[in-house]
Amino acid sequence: MEPVSAAVSAVLPAGGSGERLGGATPKQFCGLQGRPLVSYAVRAMERVSWISDIIVVVSPENIETMKSIVEKYGHKRVTVVKGGITRHRSIFNGLKVFAENQSSNRLLQKPEVVIIHDAVRPFVEEDILLKVVTAAKEHGAAGAIRPLVSTVIASGEDGCLDHSLERARYRASEMPQAFLFDVIYEAYQQCTDHDLDYGTECLHLALKYCKTNAKLVEGTADLWKVTYKRDLYAAESIIKDNLSQQICIITDLKEAVAQVGFLLHESLKSQVKVEAISISLRKNDSHLQNIFSGECYNFLCINDKEYATEEIQQLVDMLEKSNIPLLYPVILILVHLSISENISFSIGLEELTKIKKFAREVKKKNILVYGLLIQCKRMFQVTKVFYFKYNLLANNVDPLFVY
Amino acid sequence: MEPVSAAVSAVLPAGGSGERLGGATPKQFCGLQGRPLVSYAVRAMERVSWISDIIVVVSPENIETMKSIVEKYGHKRVTVVKGGITRHRSIFNGLKVFAENQSSNRLLQKPEVVIIHDAVRPFVEEDILLKVVTAAKEHGAAGAIRPLVSTVIASGEDGCLDHSLERARYRASEMPQAFLFDVIYEAYQQCTDHDLDYGTECLHLALKYCKTNAKLVEGTADLWKVTYKRDLYAAESIIKDNLSQQICIITDLKEAVAQVGFLLHESLKSQVKVEAISISLRKNDSHLQNIFSGECYNFLCINDKEYATEEIQQLVDMLEKSNIPLLYPVILILVHLSISENISFSIGLEELTKIKKFAREVKKKNILVYGLLIQCKRMFQVTKVFYFKYNLLANNVDPLFVY
Repeated sequence: MEPVSAAVSAVLPAGGSGERLGGATPKQFCGLQGRPLVSYAVRAMERVSWISDIIVVVSPENIETMKSIVEKYGHKRVTVVKGGITRHRSIFNGLKVFAENQSSNRLLQKPEVVIIHDAVRPFVEEDILLKVVTAAKEHGAAGAIRPLVSTVIASGEDGCLDHSLERARYRASEMPQAFLFDVIYEAYQQCTDHDLDYGTECLHLALKYCKTNAKLVEGTADLWKVTYKRDLYAAESIIKDNLSQQICIITDLKEAVAQVGFLLHESLKSQVKVEAISISLRKNDSHLQNIFSGECYNFLCINDKEYATEEIQQLVDMLEKSNIPLLYPVILILVHLSISENISFSIGLEELTKIKKFAREVKKKNILVYGLLIQCKRMFQVTKVFYFKYNLLANNVDPLFVY
Repeated sequence: MEPVSAAVSAVLPAGGSGERLGGATPKQFCGLQGRPLVSYAVRAMERVSWISDIIVVVSPENIETMKSIVEKYGHKRVTVVKGGITRHRSIFNGLKVFAENQSSNRLLQKPEVVIIHDAVRPFVEEDILLKVVTAAKEHGAAGAIRPLVSTVIASGEDGCLDHSLERARYRASEMPQAFLFDVIYEAYQQCTDHDLDYGTECLHLALKYCKTNAKLVEGTADLWKVTYKRDLYAAESIIKDNLSQQICIITDLKEAVAQVGFLLHESLKSQVKVEAISISLRKNDSHLQNIFSGECYNFLCINDKEYATEEIQQLVDMLEKSNIPLLYPVILILVHLSISENISFSIGLEELTKIKKFAREVKKKNILVYGLLIQCKRMFQVTKVFYFKYNLLANNVDPLFVY
């Protein structure tokens, strides 16, 4: 991707009350696979290296919630700012941080271009961010658009149809948008209280007060706004669609277990791309680094030891060291195999608690750890049992422990 | 609900190619819990007693697919009609069936009011249908509307913003819509090829050619159109939201099993409303009929016999006899308990095949049968195991067999 030749920062208004969603939690704080929506949007910005500062604007009562999210998920370059009573007032507050150095802790550099993006559009990609920023640099303002899904109509005062708009001539204005900082800040400074209280469209302010006709950029379907409860489920479907379809199988050295590794490799390869089988974790550090750089982020660790938490800790450490900015989760399935005529072994509660705690911890880093305990009399049964449990997991991207 | 004093029929255009969804299957034929989307929309119409005929318009290559769906899911009052190359042409074809008696097999009575509804809006309720039909009878035309989610903008020829619309003045035009048959049929007969090929809005035709200003009726969020792949997941979430939150526990007479029934009753009642415990199915016919009419549609059958397919068949028969028009599935969980110090019993493959086949059959009737095999050494463990498996089911409304 071409480098961006401007200082760029981002403002994320996250002050909405989420009334259309129903329920008490504002939608930006609703969990998606256990992580708040706003954290996905922040991560989406954060993984773009050329965005300097990320300003998250939340309503006064949610300042502490947002700060704890930043801390819990280890977000960097984020400043939490107090919002106003409307969307426009919140964005204005976010912009002021650059203009007036109101932030007490640090001085934020005024960017040449500022991105405005909603906290409830979690799946924004670098590609579209680059397009709107580049267009904003040239035109002063730019915004993502999408085709209209429904016909738009105007109603008369009697509640009857006045006229309908020709669908092809109109577009839905979505996010992200980008502006030359001076343009949008000037527009906010000039606009009226009526604009601030009843307006919804930043592109409109740039046009009205700075005569800047924003460049419109076709966005992807993933940019849609999480609005209703059903959208949370839709968002989960997008996460599932974006999970890496590659898997790396890691087994330890014992012959029978390694054999099962190969059996699984054979039976899985029609479903997902099986990237590699690494026989031992310890001896293949550089091998695994290559696997990471090949964008294979899912792992299946097969062993016959009681609980291989050490091994899995090692894998997590390597993932962290490799510094991959993960928007979608990494899946790590820990399979504990027992092939024996005598089915008897059980789960130690202490070990189970330990690994569950571990899974909760790494989940914050967007790594989902699953445990599978498979006990079979004969080796050929293993793939059958695994298949069944794997399919269960595939339908529930949640750190379940299917023991 | 007030009775409708008009002959009413419905036309469902289902000819779309689903290109926005991605993938080869047009969205109206995509499975939702295994049943095609269009079947939900047909069922939604079918359960409204005052709708006489339901015309489903599909593209020529999908006529057989649609006919087999009608047969498989036992839809009644449905006529499958060949569509045109655009939405308007398809709807016109659907209307012609009433006007010209083109249908070779039967004569369809011309309705006073015709409902037009999309096959990809599966969750339409009787309430909104009644509202648009009543308004159409008075005004000649009526349609459901929703607030706009995004600001609508017009772009200039240079791909830049021309102007943005004030969001509060406009609405998204959704479905269902209803018309006096003579109004909409007249409009279709008069409209130009350009209208038929490029138009999208029936309300617009009624206004343009019959000077009929449609009455606009606020609809619910559930009326949205399944457009993208993520919408299929959203639709599943709506099914889950609408599942009955009541459950009836049925156990047979053996003391230990009955006791587990009560234990489950105690542990479940915080999650779902436990309506009744019927100790034996055979002796409580009238009791169960009362439960059906009280809208408690989920059942938990606990037994210690090998497989109680007979009992469950009896329950399915009773559900069918009660003639409840099911839009959302009924869940029927068959729990086979074994409480014993000696964990040993296994599953007979023949029995398993039999019950799986049974589950596939009744799924067509919108009844989802699940089987749970629980073996525990002590009774108090049973609820723990059940809980875990029940939560699995709650996340996967799919007839899985968690044995």
